[in-house]
Amino acid sequence: MIIIGEKINGVIPSVKKAIEERDAEFIRNRAIQQEEAGADYIDICAATAPAVEVETLKWLIDIVQDAVDTPICIDSPDALFLKEVLPFIRKPGLINSVNLENIAGSDLDKCDVIFPLIEGTEWGVVALTCDSEHGTPQDVPTRVEITKGIVEKAAKYGITPDKIHIDPLVMALSTDNNSLLNFIESIKGIKAIYPTIKITSGLSNISFGMPARKLINQNFMTLAIYAGMDSAIMDPLNNGIMSSIFASEALLGRDRHTRKFSAAVRKGRIV
Amino acid sequence: MIIIGEKINGVIPSVKKAIEERDAEFIRNRAIQQEEAGADYIDICAATAPAVEVETLKWLIDIVQDAVDTPICIDSPDALFLKEVLPFIRKPGLINSVNLENIAGSDLDKCDVIFPLIEGTEWGVVALTCDSEHGTPQDVPTRVEITKGIVEKAAKYGITPDKIHIDPLVMALSTDNNSLLNFIESIKGIKAIYPTIKITSGLSNISFGMPARKLINQNFMTLAIYAGMDSAIMDPLNNGIMSSIFASEALLGRDRHTRKFSAAVRKGRIV
Repeated sequence: MIIIGEKINGVIPSVKKAIEERDAEFIRNRAIQQEEAGADYIDICAATAPAVEVETLKWLIDIVQDAVDTPICIDSPDALFLKEVLPFIRKPGLINSVNLENIAGSDLDKCDVIFPLIEGTEWGVVALTCDSEHGTPQDVPTRVEITKGIVEKAAKYGITPDKIHIDPLVMALSTDNNSLLNFIESIKGIKAIYPTIKITSGLSNISFGMPARKLINQNFMTLAIYAGMDSAIMDPLNNGIMSSIFASEALLGRDRHTRKFSAAVRKGRIV
Repeated sequence: MIIIGEKINGVIPSVKKAIEERDAEFIRNRAIQQEEAGADYIDICAATAPAVEVETLKWLIDIVQDAVDTPICIDSPDALFLKEVLPFIRKPGLINSVNLENIAGSDLDKCDVIFPLIEGTEWGVVALTCDSEHGTPQDVPTRVEITKGIVEKAAKYGITPDKIHIDPLVMALSTDNNSLLNFIESIKGIKAIYPTIKITSGLSNISFGMPARKLINQNFMTLAIYAGMDSAIMDPLNNGIMSSIFASEALLGRDRHTRKFSAAVRKGRIV
């Protein structure tokens, strides 16, 4: 499981406060803790007013890349802001996110802006299965169709499917009882065409509106790993979710002599 | 998930003591608690010396069937003891277990003794995939072959596959990293031939020799439900395992509007 650590995000109140107060130590610690907990990427999202977003992202980027070797997953709703901060990131990571929705007042979508920037680099992208025609579809064929559109656009810039983390934007189970089943079928449908592509997801949407959400999130992780999810945008310091990852990978024969599981128990990383 | 409650078993020290002291109240409470927690069958296993096993089983049977309506899963290693106590059970349940190993000093196996007794009744059986030739095989083709042998023998007595709970005897993951994967493939292989057959398992073998066993057991349950396991010999009072069941069934679209999950949280049945 490729872990995209989600804990440096301005929507989190303590992070918002740290950003406002320019508390570099707080941000640095969050980066280090996530790296130590096993994050493969550190997501950086400012979630500030647009007027200060680029400046805030640059401040965050500098702190994180000075603190850890883990690559950055740079996260903004605005493609032009992403374009502006990309040159300041020293090591290739992930761009979060692109999709096929037209940018307001333009004929271009985020792929059109971002893909040329990473042509010939090792950068990857998180790509959402949404476009201007369908919005955020929940059905498998439309998700597969949008994925095709993204992969074909990426191919024009030499970006191969293994660099693309497709996020099918899982719906809340309380709204759609077939949400996980559709996600699983989407994984199968997309991987049947692009075996090397990566499938990703956030973990909390699935349990929206339900009690005991952590139970749903943990079991979602277990089932999604089995179904072929490759990466997750998540909190690597969440012992419950990490338990699902270590236990599932051991159960699925991906942990020789169950050593990683046992080590994680010994180190108190899982509960 | 069909739950076979495992808490009235003489191998459990407190149950052993209750049996020795003929503490009927203790046994009665265990039956009631398991029924209330959602058990579909109450397993009864004496685990005493052979000389007193039949007498002990009869005592246990009377207490349980007076206390609850839930059918009994009668459990003995000895086919002849099972034969002897069966007439005392008022409501059809499950016999735990049969297999194709020859009974010592005989050409017959447990199927040969038990199947004629339940011909034309509603009784079902738990059947282990072991025989005299192969012992307890871990490979899928042999498990499927032994299942065929059991089903074909059952058919002679009019016992249909839906009355048979096949237990493929899952090996410890610490010994065989592919144990769950083989179990999943066994489920698929067996159900491809007998779609209505039931697959069952205990939950604790898988984690033998590992730390934090409950994490492995819980995630085993989640993955096994997805893979098509129908029943489990388990402790229905174990909140962790029940959490896996309720969360998985909700995630797999088997819990309309996630109502059962929400009710279980409200009643404190899951954590």
